[in-house]
Amino acid sequence: MNNRQIVLDRLPAGDKLAPDHFALNVGERPTAGEGQVLLKTRYISLDAANRAWMQGATYRSALEGGQVMAGGGLSEVVESNVGHLKPGDLVFADAGWQEYAVLQGKTLSKLPDLKPETHLLSVYGIAGLTAYFGLLECGQPKAGDTVVVSAAAGSVGSIVGQIAKIKGCRVVGIAGGEEKGRWLTEELGFDAAVDYKSPEFKRQLRAAVPDGIDVFFDNTGGPIFEACLFAMKNFGRIACCGALSQYDGAPPPHGPRGIPGLIVTKRLTLRGFVVMDFAAQNDQALADLQGWVASGQLKVKEDIIDGLENLPSALIGLLGGENRGKRMVRV
Amino acid sequence: MNNRQIVLDRLPAGDKLAPDHFALNVGERPTAGEGQVLLKTRYISLDAANRAWMQGATYRSALEGGQVMAGGGLSEVVESNVGHLKPGDLVFADAGWQEYAVLQGKTLSKLPDLKPETHLLSVYGIAGLTAYFGLLECGQPKAGDTVVVSAAAGSVGSIVGQIAKIKGCRVVGIAGGEEKGRWLTEELGFDAAVDYKSPEFKRQLRAAVPDGIDVFFDNTGGPIFEACLFAMKNFGRIACCGALSQYDGAPPPHGPRGIPGLIVTKRLTLRGFVVMDFAAQNDQALADLQGWVASGQLKVKEDIIDGLENLPSALIGLLGGENRGKRMVRV
Repeated sequence: MNNRQIVLDRLPAGDKLAPDHFALNVGERPTAGEGQVLLKTRYISLDAANRAWMQGATYRSALEGGQVMAGGGLSEVVESNVGHLKPGDLVFADAGWQEYAVLQGKTLSKLPDLKPETHLLSVYGIAGLTAYFGLLECGQPKAGDTVVVSAAAGSVGSIVGQIAKIKGCRVVGIAGGEEKGRWLTEELGFDAAVDYKSPEFKRQLRAAVPDGIDVFFDNTGGPIFEACLFAMKNFGRIACCGALSQYDGAPPPHGPRGIPGLIVTKRLTLRGFVVMDFAAQNDQALADLQGWVASGQLKVKEDIIDGLENLPSALIGLLGGENRGKRMVRV
Repeated sequence: MNNRQIVLDRLPAGDKLAPDHFALNVGERPTAGEGQVLLKTRYISLDAANRAWMQGATYRSALEGGQVMAGGGLSEVVESNVGHLKPGDLVFADAGWQEYAVLQGKTLSKLPDLKPETHLLSVYGIAGLTAYFGLLECGQPKAGDTVVVSAAAGSVGSIVGQIAKIKGCRVVGIAGGEEKGRWLTEELGFDAAVDYKSPEFKRQLRAAVPDGIDVFFDNTGGPIFEACLFAMKNFGRIACCGALSQYDGAPPPHGPRGIPGLIVTKRLTLRGFVVMDFAAQNDQALADLQGWVASGQLKVKEDIIDGLENLPSALIGLLGGENRGKRMVRV
């Protein structure tokens, strides 16, 4: 029995990720041993972090060439040798880019029955929880605050901005292109959008936050981070979620100006986080997110692409800013 | 009646501070109007921040050429037109580099009677309070933590390291030269010292913190900041107190590498602060500091230079790392 897989054939060495870094492989479908479960992949999540894992060790060890590409997704239990999972159950699994995978059952837990099930990967998955904890725990927004989010049209950013609106903040999204900006303001209720690709970016940003920024939720790092750093108000908070601008290509030779001088004079707090750090509070977060989705205050945007073979182009496109909302591949 | 003053004759424009940026001026001694007090300067505090004020607006507006050089110090009330101050009282005053100054009385409060009175400018003044609040509030050290402090032989750093020892931490000081390092370990009880001027600096640092840094109290910014950033443990805290390496000369074209990437993957918290932010807790801080000085756990090092005319060279020398402990000029 076959198991189609996408292998990370070779690591990009300082160059941009391209289709020829990957290869399609047809392996043997594995079987579940003691304490294990056999999973069939339904949806694979695409995330900028996938690219960061190729650069070196992060919160997971660095990827190596020749392995099945790493990635998390929504999988269905096919065979189970553990008591708490039975065939048909859905789990979130670090199963890689392949049709079937065998994992230790103790690392998995059954997901709730929710429709559409793709929401388990978007608003009720890592993206939604990252937005929730990063904004509320690290950003500490108060009603009336000006909140700026970078990569605002992405899976996390689009939710960050909407939660900030729910909390009574004025919200400015940074995204590439006027069309994305219109989507943020007209569909998602952002107060303003700024186009980082415009030569007028810095001026646009200043105009959008005339009194400065209270909370900056940063997904990008680089020049966007620097521009927002200079626009922070005293006692502002920066939630450091990612550094999308730094993942695809050679690492930048220098960091943003103003560090640490502006942190001191503006008395800023910068806090980095990874969503797993807040796992103990997941129940409350999911209850809030479900309530906001049910009431229509939080709109869920998903970008679903069909076919395992399209995973490489889906990731490359995400790194280029193609997607709106949560991108995933249906296997 | 005369009033000798040091005037900041012209601002250094991207060059290093030099004696010819200053001029000695003999003005008229002012008199106190309604609600005002006439102060006679006893000691003027020298601080790296004095130089930062010349670069642009910080927590105070930027200095301008032609003005009496700004600076705080210990002054004695000579004439008073306010009820809460009488001749002979000591106050901490932002009186500038001059023998006499008139200030609004409501901005001043009488200092306690302490001997030696210079301690009011060192351990019980801005230096001691900065060390106390920056370490304990922003650094959040726990017993057993590894604490690293830059500019460790300076007025703030020398107290930071000693408070960290009192709190049961392992303490590594970064200072220039082996002699300062010996002073930190042999006299002040630091566990180790690292010489940032050595070509082996990074290797020395790694060897001194084999398991990484829990708390970094940063006074310098620049390459020292970057080296410590890369050596931080997960969930480490960086107290951003100053950026001494960036003050004297042209502003650096770039910031440290690793920002914000390492903040995310290591889940760091960076917090900038200015001592005034914690004024509401000054009583507790002073009580603790006095207790530690009385018990001999906290050694106070002061570097007192005589003569108003020596203020420029005293500041220039401080920026070059001449001093150990709190530098001040007796007027």
